[in-house]
Amino acid sequence: MRDTFHDELDQIGSSLVEMTDLVGSAIRRATSALLDADLQMAEAVISADEEVDRLYHQTEQRAFDLLARQQPVALDLRVIVAGLRMVADLERMGDLAHHVAKIARMRYPAHAVPPELRSTVLEMGQTAERIVAKAGSVIADQDVAMAVELEADDDVMDALHRKLFMIVLSDSWEHGMEPAIDVTLLSRYYERFADHAVSVARRLVYLVTGEPPEALSGDLTAAVRER
Amino acid sequence: MRDTFHDELDQIGSSLVEMTDLVGSAIRRATSALLDADLQMAEAVISADEEVDRLYHQTEQRAFDLLARQQPVALDLRVIVAGLRMVADLERMGDLAHHVAKIARMRYPAHAVPPELRSTVLEMGQTAERIVAKAGSVIADQDVAMAVELEADDDVMDALHRKLFMIVLSDSWEHGMEPAIDVTLLSRYYERFADHAVSVARRLVYLVTGEPPEALSGDLTAAVRER
Repeated sequence: MRDTFHDELDQIGSSLVEMTDLVGSAIRRATSALLDADLQMAEAVISADEEVDRLYHQTEQRAFDLLARQQPVALDLRVIVAGLRMVADLERMGDLAHHVAKIARMRYPAHAVPPELRSTVLEMGQTAERIVAKAGSVIADQDVAMAVELEADDDVMDALHRKLFMIVLSDSWEHGMEPAIDVTLLSRYYERFADHAVSVARRLVYLVTGEPPEALSGDLTAAVRER
Repeated sequence: MRDTFHDELDQIGSSLVEMTDLVGSAIRRATSALLDADLQMAEAVISADEEVDRLYHQTEQRAFDLLARQQPVALDLRVIVAGLRMVADLERMGDLAHHVAKIARMRYPAHAVPPELRSTVLEMGQTAERIVAKAGSVIADQDVAMAVELEADDDVMDALHRKLFMIVLSDSWEHGMEPAIDVTLLSRYYERFADHAVSVARRLVYLVTGEPPEALSGDLTAAVRER
């Protein structure tokens, strides 16, 4: 009975890793749709969010069934509750990639992002993708060191978020209001995407190290060093 | 033993209602800080978010202890899992009120919101406050009809969100980029605040009616009518 339980727990873990793949692909393709003004790709990202939602409901149901049938305690219970949170974060990340793609679609055939911001947006997209890929490794390998790296990537994301505002607010901005609003929202979507990925990684670290996420926030390194 | 269990479940419900009060007060006072450029009130909202976070952790811990000690099944299990989600939504609503207050503080002694947008922002604040108050009633009284009302309020919020963009994008906008970005983000914060409140109410409706939130989305009325 316990073996079945741990098999099912592993399946939940695999689904979480699969979701990190899906939302990583979604944010990469959404960024591509945005930078290339590629309507077809934007539509593909928008449709693909259904698969993320399907996995979300399936994984949630599986976790819920496990709680009901097996009545786990201690660490097993903590793992399932953390899994329920991680899956909700991942589902939200799918929504955010979907929001990015919708802005690309809304402005097509024009580019939503003016030329001088494309490299910054590209870097936000790449950073988002890197963070979620690392979150996937953190889950798959219980790799706490990777979680430390990912926090540094999140600092990069925050710096890009600030940089983008500085460009929009500079005197040399000549694109008017609509692109300014688009990139403000886009920047917020990328930043939130990264925040949710950080939250996924922190929950896993909590399970592995027993340190609550608050204690680790801002300085995971110390917590890892103590192990 | 079961009585203790249900007492503790009631305590979780009371904490959720208390959190709706706190975040309702936070969004009201954040809106006030914003519209009056009131630094002291902005600081008060920012500090008060700690109390929301404290209640969040306490309620989460209580739900977690109940899961571990009582190993509930069926409806009791669903109630606790839903409670864990609702408390996470409410914590996030506290963050969003905090973000609104931070924009007020950042622009002080200036007003972040230009005169012609103040009535729209006021209405967004009032709508947010009304939605969260109704979410509190939905929880306190298991009032499914109130949840239907609240969906209509959320439609009002979405309309205000669109209206605000139209004003910022109109030819008559003369406040430049910084206020445009501030109000874009503010509008997003209010809209997300309302979305989380809707999510809280939907989870409660799910517990009461057994209809999954997806099935109700967009048309709670039908689900309620069928009861």
